[in-house]
Amino acid sequence: RSSGVPAMKESSSGLGSSMVEWMQVMYPWCRSITGEGLRQTLDFVGEEVEGLDRVRIPTGTACFDWTIPREWNIRDAYVKDVAGKRVIDFRSSNLHVVSYSVPTRQRLSLAELRPHLHTLPDRPDWIPYRTSYYRQSWGFCLRHRDLLALEERGEDQVYEVVIDSSLEEGHLDYAEVLVPGARSDEVLLSTHVCHPSMANDNLSGIVVLMALGQWLRSRPRRYSYRLLFVPGTIGAVAWLAHNPEAVGRIRHGLVLAGMGDAGPLTYKRSRRADAEIDRSVERVLEERAENHSILDFSPYGYDERQYNSPGFDLPVGRLGRSEYGSYPQYHTSADDLSFVSAEQLEASFHTVAAVIERLESTETYRNLSPYGEPQLGRRGLYDDFAEGVDVVAARLARLWVLNLSDGHHSILDIADRAGLELAVVEDAARALREGGLLEVAGGK
Amino acid sequence: RSSGVPAMKESSSGLGSSMVEWMQVMYPWCRSITGEGLRQTLDFVGEEVEGLDRVRIPTGTACFDWTIPREWNIRDAYVKDVAGKRVIDFRSSNLHVVSYSVPTRQRLSLAELRPHLHTLPDRPDWIPYRTSYYRQSWGFCLRHRDLLALEERGEDQVYEVVIDSSLEEGHLDYAEVLVPGARSDEVLLSTHVCHPSMANDNLSGIVVLMALGQWLRSRPRRYSYRLLFVPGTIGAVAWLAHNPEAVGRIRHGLVLAGMGDAGPLTYKRSRRADAEIDRSVERVLEERAENHSILDFSPYGYDERQYNSPGFDLPVGRLGRSEYGSYPQYHTSADDLSFVSAEQLEASFHTVAAVIERLESTETYRNLSPYGEPQLGRRGLYDDFAEGVDVVAARLARLWVLNLSDGHHSILDIADRAGLELAVVEDAARALREGGLLEVAGGK
Amino acid sequence: RSSGVPAMKESSSGLGSSMVEWMQVMYPWCRSITGEGLRQTLDFVGEEVEGLDRVRIPTGTACFDWTIPREWNIRDAYVKDVAGKRVIDFRSSNLHVVSYSVPTRQRLSLAELRPHLHTLPDRPDWIPYRTSYYRQSWGFCLRHRDLLALEERGEDQVYEVVIDSSLEEGHLDYAEVLVPGARSDEVLLSTHVCHPSMANDNLSGIVVLMALGQWLRSRPRRYSYRLLFVPGTIGAVAWLAHNPEAVGRIRHGLVLAGMGDAGPLTYKRSRRADAEIDRSVERVLEERAENHSILDFSPYGYDERQYNSPGFDLPVGRLGRSEYGSYPQYHTSADDLSFVSAEQLEASFHTVAAVIERLESTETYRNLSPYGEPQLGRRGLYDDFAEGVDVVAARLARLWVLNLSDGHHSILDIADRAGLELAVVEDAARALREGGLLEVAGGK
Repeated sequence: RSSGVPAMKESSSGLGSSMVEWMQVMYPWCRSITGEGLRQTLDFVGEEVEGLDRVRIPTGTACFDWTIPREWNIRDAYVKDVAGKRVIDFRSSNLHVVSYSVPTRQRLSLAELRPHLHTLPDRPDWIPYRTSYYRQSWGFCLRHRDLLALEERGEDQVYEVVIDSSLEEGHLDYAEVLVPGARSDEVLLSTHVCHPSMANDNLSGIVVLMALGQWLRSRPRRYSYRLLFVPGTIGAVAWLAHNPEAVGRIRHGLVLAGMGDAGPLTYKRSRRADAEIDRSVERVLEERAENHSILDFSPYGYDERQYNSPGFDLPVGRLGRSEYGSYPQYHTSADDLSFVSAEQLEASFHTVAAVIERLESTETYRNLSPYGEPQLGRRGLYDDFAEGVDVVAARLARLWVLNLSDGHHSILDIADRAGLELAVVEDAARALREGGLLEVAGGK
Repeated sequence: RSSGVPAMKESSSGLGSSMVEWMQVMYPWCRSITGEGLRQTLDFVGEEVEGLDRVRIPTGTACFDWTIPREWNIRDAYVKDVAGKRVIDFRSSNLHVVSYSVPTRQRLSLAELRPHLHTLPDRPDWIPYRTSYYRQSWGFCLRHRDLLALEERGEDQVYEVVIDSSLEEGHLDYAEVLVPGARSDEVLLSTHVCHPSMANDNLSGIVVLMALGQWLRSRPRRYSYRLLFVPGTIGAVAWLAHNPEAVGRIRHGLVLAGMGDAGPLTYKRSRRADAEIDRSVERVLEERAENHSILDFSPYGYDERQYNSPGFDLPVGRLGRSEYGSYPQYHTSADDLSFVSAEQLEASFHTVAAVIERLESTETYRNLSPYGEPQLGRRGLYDDFAEGVDVVAARLARLWVLNLSDGHHSILDIADRAGLELAVVEDAARALREGGLLEVAGGK
Repeated sequence: RSSGVPAMKESSSGLGSSMVEWMQVMYPWCRSITGEGLRQTLDFVGEEVEGLDRVRIPTGTACFDWTIPREWNIRDAYVKDVAGKRVIDFRSSNLHVVSYSVPTRQRLSLAELRPHLHTLPDRPDWIPYRTSYYRQSWGFCLRHRDLLALEERGEDQVYEVVIDSSLEEGHLDYAEVLVPGARSDEVLLSTHVCHPSMANDNLSGIVVLMALGQWLRSRPRRYSYRLLFVPGTIGAVAWLAHNPEAVGRIRHGLVLAGMGDAGPLTYKRSRRADAEIDRSVERVLEERAENHSILDFSPYGYDERQYNSPGFDLPVGRLGRSEYGSYPQYHTSADDLSFVSAEQLEASFHTVAAVIERLESTETYRNLSPYGEPQLGRRGLYDDFAEGVDVVAARLARLWVLNLSDGHHSILDIADRAGLELAVVEDAARALREGGLLEVAGGK
């Protein structure tokens, strides 16, 4: 076992199964950046995550450069042929309607309807996912195969086109929970909750964050943990705008998205590139994951864009599996429950948990006996190693911790310089601290 | 077309031809670090470059560690055999006389004359170029083939040796022009004007700087540009000594020399090595020149030696083609008009112009909406790209500019980090600035 | 000859022979971290090294985290069989007794004695070296071959076991000498003196430091040199604890150990890793030694552990030959006088001397004529090179020294940046200083 493995066993099939069950419940709901489907989702999260707070921000509220949009709700939508048959039916997949489509009720020929139809010619059996949050329009998404069938009927065939939606004054909803720790310094864990029936993007992020919310309560915490379940972009911006004090307390953060597919774990660095979160995640991935990939920061992606904007410049990276856009199922109906697995979700959870263990244990100490080496022997700190311990490495780790604990080098820095396993260095620090030779250098 | 290409077309044969014509006019004149040939040259520069100021500093004036020397002029010089034939004749090439030779008029055997004769045994048809500015002496330079012919006549043959020169109280002359821009911050462009009849070193530098002087007037300027036409070393030292305020305004600079030969463009870095001028020239060369070379700073070379001396440490690099001393024609009569070409001069000009465009466009901005991403869509900045633009790169460039414009990253820094073409980043900055999202971070 | 070679010739067999003779005298004495053998050794050092001061610190004195232990002395020790024959005899090798063994006098069967016996089964003819300074115990070290012979006699054979030692109130002894230089800034040279009859570890370090003490008196010194002959760990800690002012004056330092074996010279960097001592030793090794190795700092090893502890963080590296523990003879009776040679000792000495020359010559200057290049010609500094000098390099070196001597670049920095031999740069600085163009930038 390498360092910082959470107490929950990796082989425990219970955790992966729970996450899959949660996804099954939430999968059918029509989420968007506002509306009933979003609230329904947050309600469900609140049933599983203790202490979840709900926040509602009214339409029209300014949040930095943004304004909370009108709330979108949809009851039904279809395209019906002259025989009264629904050739496109919202009830069979909520992806069929472009999110935030304005209400419409018209009779249109296929030729007239055509500009409002979106398909994937390369993937004729998949329904694409499209949105139009900030530009008033409407549209349908459908299988390209189905579009070809309509075209065979003729361009002049007339259809009844109905989108029974509403765009009205309402609210933006999001949910957060602060799991308090010994310090007020916070670790931010954020996921987006605005995608309709797709499993990997981003029910997978939601359920991993739910599982983390449960697990965090069960372990001692040096840091406080803030978990955010927010609609993409506007939700993150709204949270940043309304929580200046909390923003100032964030020491490390992760955006979680795309946690369930079969791809390798992928970490995207923060804007700072060498923040402790960056080094911690990279170390964990090196130690745990056979295949993984590290991406440099770029201002494109999920809500790390907001947290890393120059006015905040928070040390927030993003962790997931296959990078969005890199797999064909991305933003299509093929990102369904079969695209994710309990094992992959669980492994993602355990990686985040290991990062948290890493952050928790990456203390910076001060050697209380910095003038020459302290006499380890008379404190019983020279020969006190348990059976099976690599005594040479363990003793060397103690000397390194003493040598570099000048208040400027964290345990992680020391492990890096010494070329030792972090766990060995952590063990050394624990023993030295218990032996009265180290004190915490102060919250950082 | 990559970024920052000056408006003047590269294929315009007019510019190259003009530069060659200017060289043809100035080629015959006997320039040195002082004297009539130098003044004649500066007069001619003044006819083409608007606003050129002439400066005269009297012999004996102290300039830091140096003193303006006596002025040297020469009317005639020859070595005449007993038959009255000029076997060495200043009138056929001003390289025949060692520059700053003291006047002499003697009858000498070849054996006595021999220590005063300089040839290139390896290049028997070329006349070398020699100077003796600061040590009183005299000498002749000649083709080695001609020396051999004299030797065949016998060591005891007697010759009439005449150098009709003068070394008298007078002046050091140089010329400068300040082409003003929106800011008082200056870009220094300097070339040496003290070499007699040689084309590449350094009529080529003179004519490229003349062309830049004309072109700079024609374009908007953020910076002010100071062009110096100075005798090597003593001229640069004299200018530095007499212009402490201007020295303090120099933000970037280039010494131009050897711009016309067929060798690859060569940039020698400033002492600071990573100044903006260094990074700008290197980027331009990468983008424009197939073959080019980058040299680290060294305190040997042309007037960059003076500008980079530790008391000034100005960010001044040097741009040219073949490095001095690296080609056999260097400092010989073979560096004649056939050694340079209009095309090479023009390409050199355009490279400097592109560097200037780069400096002009390398602004540092501040994102005026730094808290989260600004909403580009409602400003028409998300989908406003012209046909043919790479929308993915263009949009990403805008996000990068917004993300890094915190007052500490210039456009060039951003392009470097983003791995995007500078022109794309510049376009992004322009659009964002017009959209009210950026302001200039302040003169730097 | 590369730079900084000490005046003493490398081929002088006198120096190596002297060092070997000193080792022969001291080899038999039973040294430990306290006691008569240690004092005898320091007495001998004092006969050869002028001005050596002796320091005595009483048992029980606190030195940071340590306390001066009781003094250990030993008169005799043996294991005698029933026939009265000494089967282990301290008189034949002082390695036979575990250092700091408490007195004992017992009759024991081999089975009872066995836990107190230490051998090297892999090296049956060598006696290991063991200590028990801070844990009360006693023991014998012997050849494994001899142990097997005892075992053949039977486990129940009874022996008379005597260690006639004493552990009493007394003193810790060490010796130091300050060889004063022009400045109070100090170079620390430290070696441990606590090992009994072993040649490489560490009589070799003692005799090299003795030779350095003699040689330093004979040469001009910019720095003051402090030579420490101290018992390992406790002696270094005691010196640090009692000399806070001297600690504050240390600018560079070396621990010397294992200087006589046939292995390549090995340098272990200081904690700072790029201190001037690090760069100086690495340069000297590159220039002088065909084979050498550079080790990163680690808090394990000899007294560099104490000097590099975080409360001091002194720029002190360690120089030796084969790294301790890397050769089988380490800490055994096979580390005898045949394991070292006069030639190797002498080469080690000369390497340290070259490092000292390097430190002495690595001055930081300030160009007194920093505005433009000074006029070298009128000072006779342009063409004054002796026959055989590489004029191009020599002249370039002068320009580099002038260019970088802004008070922030030492001669070593300049040689590194210029890519020139340090000796050439030193010559340049000497000429420029004599020519009035440089002044020392101030003690650093």
